[in-house]
Amino acid sequence: MTFRARHLLGIEHLSPEDIRTVLDLAESYVSLNRRTIKHSDALAGMTQINMFFEPSTRTQASFELAGKRLGADVMNMGVAQSSVKKGETLIDTALTLNAMHPDLLVVRHPASGAAELLAQKVNCAVINAGDGRHEHPTQALLDALTIRRKKGRIQRLTIAICGDIAHSRVARSNLILLGKMENRVRLIAPPTLMPAGAADLGCEVYHDMREGLRDADVVMMLRLQKERMDGGFIPSEREYYHRYGLDAEKLKLARPDAIVMHPGPMNRGVEIDGELADDINRSVIQEQVEMGVAVRMACLDLLARNLRADRGRQAAGEMA
Amino acid sequence: MTFRARHLLGIEHLSPEDIRTVLDLAESYVSLNRRTIKHSDALAGMTQINMFFEPSTRTQASFELAGKRLGADVMNMGVAQSSVKKGETLIDTALTLNAMHPDLLVVRHPASGAAELLAQKVNCAVINAGDGRHEHPTQALLDALTIRRKKGRIQRLTIAICGDIAHSRVARSNLILLGKMENRVRLIAPPTLMPAGAADLGCEVYHDMREGLRDADVVMMLRLQKERMDGGFIPSEREYYHRYGLDAEKLKLARPDAIVMHPGPMNRGVEIDGELADDINRSVIQEQVEMGVAVRMACLDLLARNLRADRGRQAAGEMA
Amino acid sequence: MTFRARHLLGIEHLSPEDIRTVLDLAESYVSLNRRTIKHSDALAGMTQINMFFEPSTRTQASFELAGKRLGADVMNMGVAQSSVKKGETLIDTALTLNAMHPDLLVVRHPASGAAELLAQKVNCAVINAGDGRHEHPTQALLDALTIRRKKGRIQRLTIAICGDIAHSRVARSNLILLGKMENRVRLIAPPTLMPAGAADLGCEVYHDMREGLRDADVVMMLRLQKERMDGGFIPSEREYYHRYGLDAEKLKLARPDAIVMHPGPMNRGVEIDGELADDINRSVIQEQVEMGVAVRMACLDLLARNLRADRGRQAAGEMA
Repeated sequence: MTFRARHLLGIEHLSPEDIRTVLDLAESYVSLNRRTIKHSDALAGMTQINMFFEPSTRTQASFELAGKRLGADVMNMGVAQSSVKKGETLIDTALTLNAMHPDLLVVRHPASGAAELLAQKVNCAVINAGDGRHEHPTQALLDALTIRRKKGRIQRLTIAICGDIAHSRVARSNLILLGKMENRVRLIAPPTLMPAGAADLGCEVYHDMREGLRDADVVMMLRLQKERMDGGFIPSEREYYHRYGLDAEKLKLARPDAIVMHPGPMNRGVEIDGELADDINRSVIQEQVEMGVAVRMACLDLLARNLRADRGRQAAGEMA
Repeated sequence: MTFRARHLLGIEHLSPEDIRTVLDLAESYVSLNRRTIKHSDALAGMTQINMFFEPSTRTQASFELAGKRLGADVMNMGVAQSSVKKGETLIDTALTLNAMHPDLLVVRHPASGAAELLAQKVNCAVINAGDGRHEHPTQALLDALTIRRKKGRIQRLTIAICGDIAHSRVARSNLILLGKMENRVRLIAPPTLMPAGAADLGCEVYHDMREGLRDADVVMMLRLQKERMDGGFIPSEREYYHRYGLDAEKLKLARPDAIVMHPGPMNRGVEIDGELADDINRSVIQEQVEMGVAVRMACLDLLARNLRADRGRQAAGEMA
Repeated sequence: MTFRARHLLGIEHLSPEDIRTVLDLAESYVSLNRRTIKHSDALAGMTQINMFFEPSTRTQASFELAGKRLGADVMNMGVAQSSVKKGETLIDTALTLNAMHPDLLVVRHPASGAAELLAQKVNCAVINAGDGRHEHPTQALLDALTIRRKKGRIQRLTIAICGDIAHSRVARSNLILLGKMENRVRLIAPPTLMPAGAADLGCEVYHDMREGLRDADVVMMLRLQKERMDGGFIPSEREYYHRYGLDAEKLKLARPDAIVMHPGPMNRGVEIDGELADDINRSVIQEQVEMGVAVRMACLDLLARNLRADRGRQAAGEMA
């Protein structure tokens, strides 16, 4: 088993073997979560703090349940309650929490690099739950687990990522992971939502969705943020849906067994047709959520093991 | 023992025997809660999610404590944090949570029928913690337990429900329960706050409070919602209190051992006199809160048993 | 062992021996919290409710972690969610919660005396987590533990408390505690922020910070509340920092081994220089946070022991 990292800050720091280690362990948690008694003692007596500086139902809930099912003492700290309102800096808040001896700190923050900055300041394990436009590694891992379970592999697939690529940490983490696992990644977006230099990332770049979908094994739709809709990035919701919204008709261009993914929450009728989203033969959106809890349990568990090992080595070193 | 239901959506679906089953089990939880060590493992390893789309201190707190004392992993999801703000529909939110494999979903929602709609979409047990003007079954059950403990029975009593009947799910659940248990129910309200067709519900209808209180064993006051006070439903708070507010003088018309109930939070001096509310010889308002936790523990426990039995049967069926 | 109190409402009710009992027990929790498995069963099966009528990240988080690490079922009730918004009074809210049989109620409230009022109404143990300008006893206890660990004693020290003394419950609890333990306490503040009658409290009063710092063993800075900055209490932030802000240069007047304390959250550059706050040779601000969790665990544990003993005596009395 690999995955020796202290923190989970981004997919960019993981090897293909690390990724496989997470996914394999997550499989066992998928089984556990389907039982009525879904409890492990992997984190018993440990403290997990969820620090969400951006609101998020599903990601915070997913981490909270993951920690609780592993037996951790879990504490949520929303930005609403936080001292940040009293003018405290991110670092002061983190140092304060660190002094309370958490073992695992899950952080979401609007600034790219926030999780990495925190990781340098604290002596617990940090999980990046989304930092600005940078990375959202557990999302990419849960997407990978979903794909692997549906397609039987997470390699040599043609995967189309479609929507607001430019501003999306979900897209960024996914294309790094999918690239590492040797898949063919296509980015589909209007020019205003395509990142500069996309072609240099080893991806194929499409502005025409129909072309980009051709023979895809996986179609990954992204959420269109409200602020993009109002901000001149797209002409109108209706026009966007017409050109870049996924519906049954456009999906016909992909492989007949292509699966449809979305990180949620969805804008039905904006980036995806509501009926298609609910079609259990094509859409794996609910599976993604299910895999999310399992993947987060695996990440928490692996980081906790590394933390214990580190502390053991440190204690041994201090005695020697 | 009866109570074979998958969900607790409304009193209308319960038989008198179901109701007795809940109350009898709740009695044991009343005793447990009065101990210093108040812990059971009935829900150990199970996940309870409280989804409150309307804020509520006491009901949410009551369900949270109930679940925690039964050993469940409990997660609260207030509407404030929820994706609903990002435009997600109730159903999408519920499906997302469902994919995280909760065992028990406690739902409060401003729309009548919301809990039932959810129950059709998810594969966990759903408890309705109040849906619009429809039902609030655990409130009626806790009221019944309070009455039974004080009066020695929950049958053949004369019970006056007074206040904003028209908009109250508390009143609705109570009058269904009290009717099923063969009590004489009187509804007292000004015409603007009396539901159309009240007389057809098997209740006696009064617009004059003094008449309605005569010889009552139980007087159940309802909270007057702020929006009714401003909305032309009543002439003024002072006038309302004069005609429909309960005080010691009006209470003299009821039986000498009549008890006074209120689901809380109270508007002292609007629907009830503050001193009367605090009179421990007449008011059982604190007991209602205490019974609330016990009744919710009983409901969670019974639904969890049914869930386990269902899943056991399903697994056996799949193997056969 | 002493500390026989039912509640922890203020330092004023504690004897020097009570204080030593808390600090000694807290030491064992400092050790526990530094382990990976930081769990005790001292409060297993008991219910702790945190009722915060003023928002506070660090104090609420500290109490929440303290309770969870001791195995309690912990429930947070922020004012945002509370029925107080529906017009319910503090007492009604407290009586409602009390009826749910909590064992420990942690209360923060903007009104001085709120915790004491509650303690009279409920039959659980109450911890004052800050009431108006009155007391914040766990803050003074954690400060005392920090000092004792750094200075080897909590007696015969010269301690300068500097800043907005007049409005600070932190200052008030600290000067009571430090006085009881026979320290020399100096208060340093501009006249507008010095309480009337400060000289009668057995403290030395200084308006010139440089004089007040001379030969101090401990310098305790207070947070300047935003509302003071705007309210005509100080001429300007810049002027305040110049005269009453602590920096390395002013600190030279204190003893060479003087430590710097702050209850947080800090206004860097207003009451304290940012670099000095981060100087681990002088600043013990992070240690204060760490001691906070340990001291709160000790207080919760001691009150729980007393509660169990009280209930045992009561039960024995009822049988006799």
